[in-house]
Amino acid sequence: MKKKRIESLSKYFYNELANNTMPFWVEHAPDMKYGGFTTCLDRQGALLSTDKPMWVMGRITWLLSRLYNELEKKEQWLELAKHGVDFIRKYGFDKDGRMFYAVTQDGRPLRKRRYLFTETFSVIALAEYARASGDGECLALAKRTMDLILELYNKPGALEQKIIPETRKTRNHSMTMIQINTLQVLRAADQSADYDNLIDRAIEEIFRYFVKPDKKALLEIVGENGEYLGELPEGRCVNPGHVIETAWFIMEEGRKRSDTSLIQKTLPLLDWSLELGWDRKYGGILYFLDIEGKQPVQLEWDMKLWWPHNETIYATLLAHLLTGEKKYLDWFEKVLDWSIKHFPDKKYGEWLGYLHRDGSLALDLKGNFWKGPFHLPRQQLFCHLLLKDQLARSD
Amino acid sequence: MKKKRIESLSKYFYNELANNTMPFWVEHAPDMKYGGFTTCLDRQGALLSTDKPMWVMGRITWLLSRLYNELEKKEQWLELAKHGVDFIRKYGFDKDGRMFYAVTQDGRPLRKRRYLFTETFSVIALAEYARASGDGECLALAKRTMDLILELYNKPGALEQKIIPETRKTRNHSMTMIQINTLQVLRAADQSADYDNLIDRAIEEIFRYFVKPDKKALLEIVGENGEYLGELPEGRCVNPGHVIETAWFIMEEGRKRSDTSLIQKTLPLLDWSLELGWDRKYGGILYFLDIEGKQPVQLEWDMKLWWPHNETIYATLLAHLLTGEKKYLDWFEKVLDWSIKHFPDKKYGEWLGYLHRDGSLALDLKGNFWKGPFHLPRQQLFCHLLLKDQLARSD
Repeated sequence: MKKKRIESLSKYFYNELANNTMPFWVEHAPDMKYGGFTTCLDRQGALLSTDKPMWVMGRITWLLSRLYNELEKKEQWLELAKHGVDFIRKYGFDKDGRMFYAVTQDGRPLRKRRYLFTETFSVIALAEYARASGDGECLALAKRTMDLILELYNKPGALEQKIIPETRKTRNHSMTMIQINTLQVLRAADQSADYDNLIDRAIEEIFRYFVKPDKKALLEIVGENGEYLGELPEGRCVNPGHVIETAWFIMEEGRKRSDTSLIQKTLPLLDWSLELGWDRKYGGILYFLDIEGKQPVQLEWDMKLWWPHNETIYATLLAHLLTGEKKYLDWFEKVLDWSIKHFPDKKYGEWLGYLHRDGSLALDLKGNFWKGPFHLPRQQLFCHLLLKDQLARSD
Repeated sequence: MKKKRIESLSKYFYNELANNTMPFWVEHAPDMKYGGFTTCLDRQGALLSTDKPMWVMGRITWLLSRLYNELEKKEQWLELAKHGVDFIRKYGFDKDGRMFYAVTQDGRPLRKRRYLFTETFSVIALAEYARASGDGECLALAKRTMDLILELYNKPGALEQKIIPETRKTRNHSMTMIQINTLQVLRAADQSADYDNLIDRAIEEIFRYFVKPDKKALLEIVGENGEYLGELPEGRCVNPGHVIETAWFIMEEGRKRSDTSLIQKTLPLLDWSLELGWDRKYGGILYFLDIEGKQPVQLEWDMKLWWPHNETIYATLLAHLLTGEKKYLDWFEKVLDWSIKHFPDKKYGEWLGYLHRDGSLALDLKGNFWKGPFHLPRQQLFCHLLLKDQLARSD
């Protein structure tokens, strides 16, 4: 990438993040009456639901803390991060240490799920805030919650399963991949434990169970020992954006440890996903595919969602800067160009999240139980920091 | 409706049912090795999943029995219905009398859900087959299962809830509406109990809790006492096809009892749904809407699914023939015309199920966990029988 382009992109991502994405959420999300954030918002920022999704609560809290830690020591960001942490600590936890997936506006528990994602997103919130504030109790809570996640993940039968396990035992890519990133965030806040080992183990499981080089795929769901469940749609399912996210989690680990062989081992995940996921007809990245080319069963399979595009923008930029390979630069420019043409809300700021296959708008909203201030601002922040770092090295 | 049109439509629906829809399923669905039916099929009838959705198992078994009972005494239909009943009896039930939502190809249980829909679709299968075959054990099992459904429906806390009930208690239109139809089918097979009373009660609950004349809507989810949950997307959600299905269940009850006031009371449900659900931009019926005009949160909100169109075709034909009102004939012709232009698979028969908003194909498949031989053949059968009856009256 040419220096001029690096400079202009670094500014572009900073400007979008600081003057477009963040102002939308800072203006509309904080709930000054009941605490925390309301993030189910329409295009203009008005409430679509008073319920509070706790995935998003953790993610926005992490983001504000990370911005404070790595972009700028802005008091408002730290204060709002504390506002999120306070809500999580007060209303997020059940008696058993597990967490609620959703609560009412005033914090009463609505739903607890089988999966541990509320827990992982709360760990990154608590850990990143602890790093920003020095709050030791917060760090201790993050560590206890991470311990519980690992205990439940590693103990067969500890969590209720969707499928009756006597009939079929499966492994889900999501729960393994999310550990990598969660542990990376926790490691940055806490030098007291051997997180490298735990991260190695999660990465090893990704390659052992889910990566199928003969199929050129990382599969979402496999049998207990990594068996290919080719007779089932879920066994054939590829989620390219999700694989691309996993790929950059692992590439970041390679970058941190200067482990080029880990990076090289991971690049095919990115290559396969770009090849399979890019829509040759309309552009953009498809949501779900079937590795045998059969019809995916998800109704939304051919929609274009914001987040796979954010993950791809960062992953391809990282891959290019780590390897110097031009093909990643080409992908980066192509996906960035398509994204900027289709997702930004020119009238009210931030990005719209859900497009039809042909790029037309499908859902006229900014936030729901999954979309909130996370993939887009994370991508903008990480791209900006990566480019800034690249400039510093070249000076 | 003119007599010529009645004659030609009656033939059209018969022909589509007998020579297009049924041959597709009779050829591809029976599993002669493991029993029952495999119904997750691609466009050509090849397996997309070996797993067996038990909703569909009940529905296809009901359909085959009903065809035998009301269309033609074709031995193949009765034999295949028995083939379905045998699988349901052997593999469908858990020890507590409740049923599995999905089983493997060879009948091992995969998943049991909070909801009672597998149970209701099995009741109609068992009852309709009992009526066709005179199998008393089958009828007894249908009755026991219906008793259990009503017991669990009426006892607060008997079923696990999605939302923690101490925080929020809700009522779901689905579970009330499905009782009407299930009891109607059971009543036709069993004269021994007072089903009219139970049906009255379900209808009364529909009007008491879910119908909101001031909003011109029947809502999918309300508070425990019918409260409008307007601060939540699920509280504002209207599913026009679902309401139209409920409307014809109730109109059928009015027709059977010659209760014109019940029919008149129900017609607004149909009117509101047509008005709100019809897509003025592309035609067809939208899947989900928000009664306050906000953005629905379902990713598939603007897709055109086969089944709301089937329900509307039958409901508008029934409304027209019961009332003589021209507006229902106009809707019938308009929805039939749009449906015939967009859904039929001209190459491999039957209908495709899932279109984008603009009518283009979204999912290239014939069956999944929800689509199977039910809404389309039921509509074709019921339209044919209704038109035949109309001709008989006018002769």
